[in-house]
Amino acid sequence: MSYKVTVLTMFPEAFPGPLGVSLIGTSWKESELWSLETLDIRTFSSDKRGFLDDTPAGGGPGQVLKADVIAKALDSLELSDRPKVYMSARGKPLTQAKVKEWSQADGLIVLCGRFEGVDQRVLDARGFEEISVGDAVLAGGEAAAMVTIEAVVRLIPGVLGASESLETESFEDGLLEHPQYTRPRTFEGLDIPEVLLSGDHKKMAVWKQQQREATTKDRRPDLWAAWLSKSQAKGSPKPQ
Amino acid sequence: MSYKVTVLTMFPEAFPGPLGVSLIGTSWKESELWSLETLDIRTFSSDKRGFLDDTPAGGGPGQVLKADVIAKALDSLELSDRPKVYMSARGKPLTQAKVKEWSQADGLIVLCGRFEGVDQRVLDARGFEEISVGDAVLAGGEAAAMVTIEAVVRLIPGVLGASESLETESFEDGLLEHPQYTRPRTFEGLDIPEVLLSGDHKKMAVWKQQQREATTKDRRPDLWAAWLSKSQAKGSPKPQ
Repeated sequence: MSYKVTVLTMFPEAFPGPLGVSLIGTSWKESELWSLETLDIRTFSSDKRGFLDDTPAGGGPGQVLKADVIAKALDSLELSDRPKVYMSARGKPLTQAKVKEWSQADGLIVLCGRFEGVDQRVLDARGFEEISVGDAVLAGGEAAAMVTIEAVVRLIPGVLGASESLETESFEDGLLEHPQYTRPRTFEGLDIPEVLLSGDHKKMAVWKQQQREATTKDRRPDLWAAWLSKSQAKGSPKPQ
Repeated sequence: MSYKVTVLTMFPEAFPGPLGVSLIGTSWKESELWSLETLDIRTFSSDKRGFLDDTPAGGGPGQVLKADVIAKALDSLELSDRPKVYMSARGKPLTQAKVKEWSQADGLIVLCGRFEGVDQRVLDARGFEEISVGDAVLAGGEAAAMVTIEAVVRLIPGVLGASESLETESFEDGLLEHPQYTRPRTFEGLDIPEVLLSGDHKKMAVWKQQQREATTKDRRPDLWAAWLSKSQAKGSPKPQ
């Protein structure tokens, strides 16, 4: 049975976007290793006038998506016990560990918020995980949903084929990747680092590890701290 | 002069996706407050065989996008002194502060990586900022680019109109937002929190602040620690 992704959105026309291209796209449209279904939230109003949203309880700006609309959309789905994700600036950050976990389920249900958000009661009652991508505010959850779905789908066996390595990549062991270089040897006066042309595999491995540690320390002090404490717990040699 | 976004991608057909819908879309297509241009990297090979990528210097899996291809694509642009962003799992996390900064420039150039990444020399030479969204690995930078562009564009004056508040939202003051509720009063046996129906504005403000602090502490210990030290530096009362 192929992996089934359902997106609840007010803008189904935003999809598939990046989910329709390259190996992600062909593994859906041709190999059918996964499927993408969009469900238009606008068709699930239980209100005669078709309203989806209402003013926030207790006041405040904007509008809130109604709980019953989201519940009705969910209840229309087969396989409604798939993991449920709500893309929200209030959420926990997306992690590769979560992505892996979801990729091992039967599929994923992703809710894209709009306005000031969704009534919290339907999120609680139906067990949505609230997830954010990047500390920035979006107009809606659609772009964030694409990030999440792409990250999950690429882990489904067969999607990437043998063309990419899933082993040596950022976040897999807690460090960012080292920088990459390729031909030509000199580009606008800048050379490829000498060590990478030395043919000395031991030296190159040391250089790559040093680069990974330095980049992580500089750009991601949070990952660096986590990596340090993991390394120390393991009793592995102290990084330089 | 309207805000000019240029995306360098191997998959221009992935766009506009979410950037073409709702107020983000109409502010581009109808009001022309900003514009979206996609540039197909594949047309900038300087190689007779049309190659874009080559094997990594020093070995390792996968392919690396060549520096000269990206340089040539950039050199074809007008206004090439706009801020340049490279979407990369190796990058610094996207923040609302960065988004604000970019929204105040003339526009933005966004490079979407593929394969194992881009030759580091062109990133360094042309001053790209490497930015990540979410700690998860993607197949390419396109979905992450959409997140970044949507976050930036919505801050351009006039794009959102008066329909949304830019003031009271997550990340603006370092705390996540409080949960939202709307009618009906009872949904599947769950009530809207009593305080929000009390009409007591002081009580409601206290409740909202408590919720914001508790949610931030639970979901984003990193933001919580930053907020605590900021509050203490200001000498404001200790949060509960």
